[in-house]
Amino acid sequence: MINIAILGYGTVGSGVYRVFTTNHKIIENRLGEAIRIKYVLDLRDFPGDPAEDVLVHDFQVILDDPEVAIVAEVMGGTGAAYTFTKKALEAGKSVCTSNKALVAEHGRELMRIAREKGVSYLFEASCGGGIPIIRAINDGLTADEIDTVAGILNGTTNYMMYKMGEEGSDFEETLKEAQAMGYAEADPTDDVEGHDACRKTAILSTLAYGKYVDYRSIPTEGITKITSEDMKYAAAMGCRIKLLGFSTNTEKGVTAIVAPFLVDKDQALYNVNDVFNGIFVHGNMLGDAMFYGSGAGMLPTASAVSADIVDAAMHLNKTVRTNWTDEEAQMVDPGDARWKFFVRTRDIPEEDVFSILPGSRVFRIAKIPEETGYITPFMKQADFDKKQARLGDKVISVIRVFAKE
Amino acid sequence: MINIAILGYGTVGSGVYRVFTTNHKIIENRLGEAIRIKYVLDLRDFPGDPAEDVLVHDFQVILDDPEVAIVAEVMGGTGAAYTFTKKALEAGKSVCTSNKALVAEHGRELMRIAREKGVSYLFEASCGGGIPIIRAINDGLTADEIDTVAGILNGTTNYMMYKMGEEGSDFEETLKEAQAMGYAEADPTDDVEGHDACRKTAILSTLAYGKYVDYRSIPTEGITKITSEDMKYAAAMGCRIKLLGFSTNTEKGVTAIVAPFLVDKDQALYNVNDVFNGIFVHGNMLGDAMFYGSGAGMLPTASAVSADIVDAAMHLNKTVRTNWTDEEAQMVDPGDARWKFFVRTRDIPEEDVFSILPGSRVFRIAKIPEETGYITPFMKQADFDKKQARLGDKVISVIRVFAKE
Repeated sequence: MINIAILGYGTVGSGVYRVFTTNHKIIENRLGEAIRIKYVLDLRDFPGDPAEDVLVHDFQVILDDPEVAIVAEVMGGTGAAYTFTKKALEAGKSVCTSNKALVAEHGRELMRIAREKGVSYLFEASCGGGIPIIRAINDGLTADEIDTVAGILNGTTNYMMYKMGEEGSDFEETLKEAQAMGYAEADPTDDVEGHDACRKTAILSTLAYGKYVDYRSIPTEGITKITSEDMKYAAAMGCRIKLLGFSTNTEKGVTAIVAPFLVDKDQALYNVNDVFNGIFVHGNMLGDAMFYGSGAGMLPTASAVSADIVDAAMHLNKTVRTNWTDEEAQMVDPGDARWKFFVRTRDIPEEDVFSILPGSRVFRIAKIPEETGYITPFMKQADFDKKQARLGDKVISVIRVFAKE
Repeated sequence: MINIAILGYGTVGSGVYRVFTTNHKIIENRLGEAIRIKYVLDLRDFPGDPAEDVLVHDFQVILDDPEVAIVAEVMGGTGAAYTFTKKALEAGKSVCTSNKALVAEHGRELMRIAREKGVSYLFEASCGGGIPIIRAINDGLTADEIDTVAGILNGTTNYMMYKMGEEGSDFEETLKEAQAMGYAEADPTDDVEGHDACRKTAILSTLAYGKYVDYRSIPTEGITKITSEDMKYAAAMGCRIKLLGFSTNTEKGVTAIVAPFLVDKDQALYNVNDVFNGIFVHGNMLGDAMFYGSGAGMLPTASAVSADIVDAAMHLNKTVRTNWTDEEAQMVDPGDARWKFFVRTRDIPEEDVFSILPGSRVFRIAKIPEETGYITPFMKQADFDKKQARLGDKVISVIRVFAKE
């Protein structure tokens, strides 16, 4: 019998409780031992709830109980969650979490403590909800050199972009609808500005390349500037606009960005719609692969936290091997990153645009006759920025194109 | 330094050689130890090939060398491959393979020997080429009860079906083209009759449900009867026809089949095209997930074999845990399996069809005015068979529909 504690009885926490009560037997069969939820920590009371009997309000009870071998931190945030995680690891308890903010912010320190104490800090649920992408990178693709990770990592924004594309609605309208349906939070900043996707991109890139990618070094653009006109162009070009967390690793270092991209219909990510997440990975031997599934939600996320708990239980008093290292990744200067850009212009003759952006392809659509769209060849971000400055207010919008040079 | 041997220097074998020569350093970093290819076994000579120096013609050399800890069996077939695998395991060497025929045929015995000897028999590359689906099922989804596996598991037939759908070509013509491109073998029986997909379905189902599914118990239909007319209907209904290896596990037991299915455009498998493979999995907590990638080819398959070698190297003198058991799955009688059927008819009034197949939906397409198509409600296979007999030669074709009741 292995005793665990769940920190936080919110959406994910109650999901983890449900996983271990529903799938108790099958997990015991796989593990060869039963897992028992000895404590659930929450400040609130839950009268009548099945977890009521194991509810405690004081983390110290869990910390002081040597029987508790594994702790699920599903509180969120970087305050108490950080303190509790650190103390638990220092006390020789493994910690499994869905808390991407904490992993991105303090992952290095927490991984170091886990290693020192011979326990594990696992965070499969921090990226892609129920999709076992972190385990695939750490344990599945061990013979490959991964050179690209591109993920639709935020269900809220993916739902919104998909709705905008399908229904022709604009950003504000779609956001309100997403909030009404519970897909977007009252304060949607973290999602729509790309911060959530940014942390996940940092975590996945760190594991994929075996070098620490700091989320603060990833240029991040949200979806707030995307309009229904952008969507019309995208549809006409056989594309969808997706908020991607993208990174590549070459000899020059890691290029990373979070931004809306035009994704062509021939690409696997094109069909990752609604609230689903999808993570595309390219390995030098594997070629293209994609992992698809529910990116959020109580049970998918809880499924991933619980799989980590099973993993930690299989490796009690050991540190589960991951690709995480403290070695800092060499980051490519964002100005040197090379992209193709889709540029919408107005009131400027084609030849003037061509003189600034030679080699571009032109798109004109009947629905917006007053504009002209261009897709540029690959060029450095810094070069494009200069060219865009020359075009001035003739430029209505700019979106990068998801393509391989 | 861990010494390995590669049995068979064909497509996959030379791929494995290339993985370990190309990614030598990154693998050593992850493993903490170097992997050295001590022998390559093949009956042929390869003058001038980089593997020439380690080439041997006699398996006994490898078997007798106590330094060889891991053997990659990438010869194929169930003859010498079986004998060599058995001897290697009995000698306390782990074996990693891409040989689905051998796993499906002798997996139980070989897994038993591996367990007895405290080594591993691993076969990630037997299903889905480079896609780490077996590791996802064994190690990723450990907190879930998986209830459905549906895979596009054969690249050759998927390429053919996709081409037939896109180009309106018929089966024979497409087969010839696929053969010319090297996507189909001179004798394509194993692929086009579904035998290859059947073995993979048996392996995946065994692992997903933790109960042994014998490939001989899976009804298997190939794609040879699919016509360009079927494709026209599919397109008109917003579907594609895919050869699926499908299984579900309920309280009644395991239902499994390999057959062409109509797959709707809203389903993740709809977009698994060309030579790609995709495996859809549903877990009771996870919900829907899909794994997508190159299903075949030298390097993707070699990537998977090599990842198994790394896994075996990380667990020397241990048996890597998998969901494999010897306990036989209770199989649902194929006649009791419930499906929706798409039925094309000719020369029979709608009311006559409705009297036999009440509740069906009607489809008529301009391109084939002389026919009427129907999609039936869910019904047992045995009941449908009786109804089809009543319709007699008015039925032109029948295809199952991929849908959840």
